[in-house]
Amino acid sequence: MSSYDGYPSHSYNPSAPPLPPGSSAASAPPPPPPSALAQPPMHPSPTAFPYQPPPPPFSHQHPPPPAPYGYAPSPSFHGGGGSGGFGYFPPGTHPEIIRSFQAVDQDGSGSIDEAELQAALSAGYQKFSSRTVRLLMFLFKNPKSPSKIGPAEFASLWSCLGEWRAIFERFDRDRSGKIDSSELRDALLSIGYAVPPSVLQVLVSKYNDGKTGKGALSFDSFVECGMVVKGLTEKFKEKDPRYTGSATLSYEEFMKMIIPFLVA
Amino acid sequence: MSSYDGYPSHSYNPSAPPLPPGSSAASAPPPPPPSALAQPPMHPSPTAFPYQPPPPPFSHQHPPPPAPYGYAPSPSFHGGGGSGGFGYFPPGTHPEIIRSFQAVDQDGSGSIDEAELQAALSAGYQKFSSRTVRLLMFLFKNPKSPSKIGPAEFASLWSCLGEWRAIFERFDRDRSGKIDSSELRDALLSIGYAVPPSVLQVLVSKYNDGKTGKGALSFDSFVECGMVVKGLTEKFKEKDPRYTGSATLSYEEFMKMIIPFLVA
Repeated sequence: MSSYDGYPSHSYNPSAPPLPPGSSAASAPPPPPPSALAQPPMHPSPTAFPYQPPPPPFSHQHPPPPAPYGYAPSPSFHGGGGSGGFGYFPPGTHPEIIRSFQAVDQDGSGSIDEAELQAALSAGYQKFSSRTVRLLMFLFKNPKSPSKIGPAEFASLWSCLGEWRAIFERFDRDRSGKIDSSELRDALLSIGYAVPPSVLQVLVSKYNDGKTGKGALSFDSFVECGMVVKGLTEKFKEKDPRYTGSATLSYEEFMKMIIPFLVA
Repeated sequence: MSSYDGYPSHSYNPSAPPLPPGSSAASAPPPPPPSALAQPPMHPSPTAFPYQPPPPPFSHQHPPPPAPYGYAPSPSFHGGGGSGGFGYFPPGTHPEIIRSFQAVDQDGSGSIDEAELQAALSAGYQKFSSRTVRLLMFLFKNPKSPSKIGPAEFASLWSCLGEWRAIFERFDRDRSGKIDSSELRDALLSIGYAVPPSVLQVLVSKYNDGKTGKGALSFDSFVECGMVVKGLTEKFKEKDPRYTGSATLSYEEFMKMIIPFLVA
C-alpha cells in the first residue's frame, strides 16, 4: 500500500472512536502517560504542551449517528459491485445518509462527483464551499476512482461530518452560526490539541473567507481547519512520541510528510 | 506586514534573479560556503545533501523575457490607480504580456479573475489546469483583492512562468512535452534542490494527473511541483542554516510553516 498517495491513513473523525474488532489498527500502541509534560528543549513557549493523549469520546446528539470507524472503507464492506467498482452502503447505515446520497445520484450510477457532493452537503448542512468539498473529496476518495465518491465513502464522510457538527454546535456558545478564535481554541482543545495562539491566528486568517465576518469560521471552514489541524498534528506527533513539543526531521521526512497535505 | 497570510515572501521564480538596487532585500545574508557538506546527524540518507546554495542564473531564450524581480509587486510600481486599487504594468513590461492581459480583460476593468487567467495562460502556453491556476492566483494575488490579478501581478506571474518554461524545455530532453521522474530530478537539481528519490516519487505521484501518462508531468503540473518544492525547501532551509539536511522544529513553528502552503 502506498503511503504517499493521499493524506496519512488515520481517521479524520475529530475524536478517535474505537476500532472494530479484528481491525489491523486495534493493536495500536498505548497512549503515553498523562504526565508526559516536558518543556520543549530548544524553543520554550508559553503554551505548556501542544497536544495531549486523546480524551475519551464524548457523547453528543446529532443525526446521523457516527459510524464506529474512520473514513477508510473497511475491507469488510460489500465492495466491488455496481458500476465503476463502487460498493454498497455498509450494514447499519442511517437511512438519512442513504436518502441524501440517492437524492443527488440521479442517474443511479452508484457514485457521485464533486458537484453532486456539494449539493448533498449543502442540503444536509448549509452551503459548503467548493474548497471544502474538494478537500473532502480528496480525503474520502475511493483510490480506484479518485474523482468519485461511492456509498461507503459517502457514509464515512457523512458520519465524520456529524461528529464535527456536534463539536461546532457545542462550542458555538453564542449560537452565532460561526466559530471565533477563542471558540476554535476550545473546540480543538476538546479533541486533544492545545493549539498555540499564534497558530490559531494563522488558522483563522487562512480559513476565514470573509463570509462570516473577520475572525470567525463558518461550519465548512471549521471542518477544513479541524481536519488540517488533526492531520498535521498527528503527523508531527509521530516524530515526537514523547510529547516534548519539538521534533527533529530530515529534509526527506519533512517533504514526504507535507506534500500529501497540499490539496491544491 | 503579516507574514502568515499567504506563502512565504520569497520569489517563486525558479532561480533567484538579482534584486533591483535599493530593494530592501538587497542586504540578504551571503550564501553558505559551498563546502557546507555534512552528514545529517540522525537520519543518514544515501543522498549527500538535499539542497545547495543557488547556482548562478543560467541564460535561456524564451519569450517573454523574465523581469529582474520576483512576484511581489515592487513599491516603485505605479500602483494604486485604476479601478479596485489595481495598478499599471511596470515600465519595460514586454508588449506580449500586456497584449495577453488585455485580450482576456474584455471589460477593461484592469483586473482579471481565475477563469480569465486560465484563458490567458492556456492561450500563451498550453492548457492550464484549474488546480494550477488556483495556486498561481494564490501565489501572485494582490493582497488587497485576493480574487483578482492586476497588471503588476500578471507581469510578475508571466515572467516567472517564462523562467519555469525555459527549465521545462531544457530538461524535456526527448521533446515529449512532459517531464518524467529523472528529468524532474535534474531540473530541480539545476536550481539547487537535490530532491531524494523517495520525495520525487511522492511528487510525481501527486502531480501526475493522468493527462500525460503515468510518471510524467505536463508543464502546468511541473510548475506547481517546482513552486512547491522551492517554497517548502526554502522554509526548511531557514531552520537548517548550516545545510545539514536536518532541522529541529517546535510544534508551533511546524504548524506556522506549513499552513500557508495548504491551498485547498
